[in-house]
Amino acid sequence: MAESETPNRSPEIRKDRINNRWVLFSPARSRRPSDFKAKSNPQPNNQTECPFCAGHEHECAPEIFRIPADSTNDWKIRVIQNLYPAVSRELDFRNSVSVIGDVAVSGFGFHDVVIESPIHSVNLSDLPPVEVGEVLLAVKKRIEQLRNCESIKYVQVFKNHGASAGASMSHSHSQMIALPIVPPTVSARLDSKKEYYKQTGKCYLCDIQPNELLIDESAHFISLVPFAATFAFEIWIIPRDHSSHFHEIDSEKAINLGGLLKLMLLKMSLQLNNPPFNLLIHTSPFQDDPSDAPSTHWFLQIAPHLSGVGGFEIATGCYINPVFPEDAARILRDVKISN
Amino acid sequence: MAESETPNRSPEIRKDRINNRWVLFSPARSRRPSDFKAKSNPQPNNQTECPFCAGHEHECAPEIFRIPADSTNDWKIRVIQNLYPAVSRELDFRNSVSVIGDVAVSGFGFHDVVIESPIHSVNLSDLPPVEVGEVLLAVKKRIEQLRNCESIKYVQVFKNHGASAGASMSHSHSQMIALPIVPPTVSARLDSKKEYYKQTGKCYLCDIQPNELLIDESAHFISLVPFAATFAFEIWIIPRDHSSHFHEIDSEKAINLGGLLKLMLLKMSLQLNNPPFNLLIHTSPFQDDPSDAPSTHWFLQIAPHLSGVGGFEIATGCYINPVFPEDAARILRDVKISN
Repeated sequence: MAESETPNRSPEIRKDRINNRWVLFSPARSRRPSDFKAKSNPQPNNQTECPFCAGHEHECAPEIFRIPADSTNDWKIRVIQNLYPAVSRELDFRNSVSVIGDVAVSGFGFHDVVIESPIHSVNLSDLPPVEVGEVLLAVKKRIEQLRNCESIKYVQVFKNHGASAGASMSHSHSQMIALPIVPPTVSARLDSKKEYYKQTGKCYLCDIQPNELLIDESAHFISLVPFAATFAFEIWIIPRDHSSHFHEIDSEKAINLGGLLKLMLLKMSLQLNNPPFNLLIHTSPFQDDPSDAPSTHWFLQIAPHLSGVGGFEIATGCYINPVFPEDAARILRDVKISN
Repeated sequence: MAESETPNRSPEIRKDRINNRWVLFSPARSRRPSDFKAKSNPQPNNQTECPFCAGHEHECAPEIFRIPADSTNDWKIRVIQNLYPAVSRELDFRNSVSVIGDVAVSGFGFHDVVIESPIHSVNLSDLPPVEVGEVLLAVKKRIEQLRNCESIKYVQVFKNHGASAGASMSHSHSQMIALPIVPPTVSARLDSKKEYYKQTGKCYLCDIQPNELLIDESAHFISLVPFAATFAFEIWIIPRDHSSHFHEIDSEKAINLGGLLKLMLLKMSLQLNNPPFNLLIHTSPFQDDPSDAPSTHWFLQIAPHLSGVGGFEIATGCYINPVFPEDAARILRDVKISN
């Protein structure tokens, strides 16, 4: 088949039977397959060409909602569709195909973007705590909408900051991918927490004693470096009260979380020289087993990228971390942020 | 504790109880923890300062063996210790500690380097097939040595090419990390293959029908793009004959594999403009259950890095691949390499 004859393909979610996980095939994100080349030093876009900036709304995929709802040019947050979605909201999830013993389902799902500020140069950590809280509440609102779609099993909220952490746009934003499957890492985490609960009668995150791993705390949250941190200077923010789903957060707690999240991002940025990072919300699937409720506890993860992920990590799922969590926590505790 | 008082720590392998996986903490790979900063555009070292080049042997950690064994300045391959090991060969694996309900074992293991050529600018794919085969046989020899250490359960062989694929040295080399644990990804793969065997009575990789996913084949191996490829243009090389362990390879097959591996690396490099990539050998643990033998089948994976791993992949374990395997296979088939 000649190059020009590459067939049009619909998104598909295929089961990797060897690794027992799923891969999302998304032609919408592709240039022509034959155009793929290694890029040297990819850089996210700059301001002059940024569709996320105020005044460029017409360059974006359709808007889902904005905050405030009745704002025009003076919006603070916009939740929009992703122009290059990894999954498609237009497919029927029930169409599944089985090829040569392998399993694939149509790539149904939602891939949305939360633009966190109308201004190009404003980072999430530049916003006052109340406005970080408003971003979190916008995420909550969108999750609650997605929950109404009964084919959706799980929503992953993530922020990529910096090109080497996966960001293709430098304008501050987060992304949400709503999936018709529960991802394998999420299932594994649920199973581990359930196992701990079975052994101890307690929720692992309720039971955590941070001691020398503590960085800071607020009325409703604690922040710490996890005992077996995957990444150097990784940070978790954990709600004090047991709660399975991020979308159960109320306004008071969202603003309280906004303050602690802002502080952690500022400390990380100052100590590590504005590193590329991912911010992840680890919540529970929508239709989770009621017996899971006592053991599942949502949390936030901040994962700085100080070294590339290499072959060892890809092959084994084991990560190499050169910084002991106790040292990282002490250093982050000692970073002073002026108010 | 003041910055200067960071305690000296020994390597530790800690269980991440939430994700049910292990993290290697390796202070030998660390500058002072407080010196960690984001680097802009890290580049591997250049020739003038390269300890892997012929004539600089004294700048390396101790040598384990060289090929030919009796060579002096005219060596072709050197297997040496890693100067910044992720695990330490000097610890006693039996020392394990349990802290606040969490589990850590001492970071015992071996971390070795295979220098694939004495010449800085020579890539693995530049070597003639016989010499690629000799590199593979050097890896086999080192695995057989490590097998004699009864605490070692698994050896991961990996090659990082290019800074964003994890390489800190540009001189062509592979690495081997021998671990006292079976990594979670390896266990998951064994379980998946066993499950397929239980369902079908066949080994998944013996049973594979590549069809439009085939790239090329040789007397003893086939190369293809896997049905649910994690990475765009990912390539697997699979031995035709069922074999659980890479180190069972003989000289004839190693040279035959050398030819096909060289061809795949050249095709990938030409099509994708010398991309960063990982080359991984997926073999079975040493002391595997004899009942696993019919379902476990070693293979090579070549994983080009055309886009960064972002928050979605880290959070979910699901990867997004913009190129359908059928298209990648067709394009790689069509790349012409002149002999």
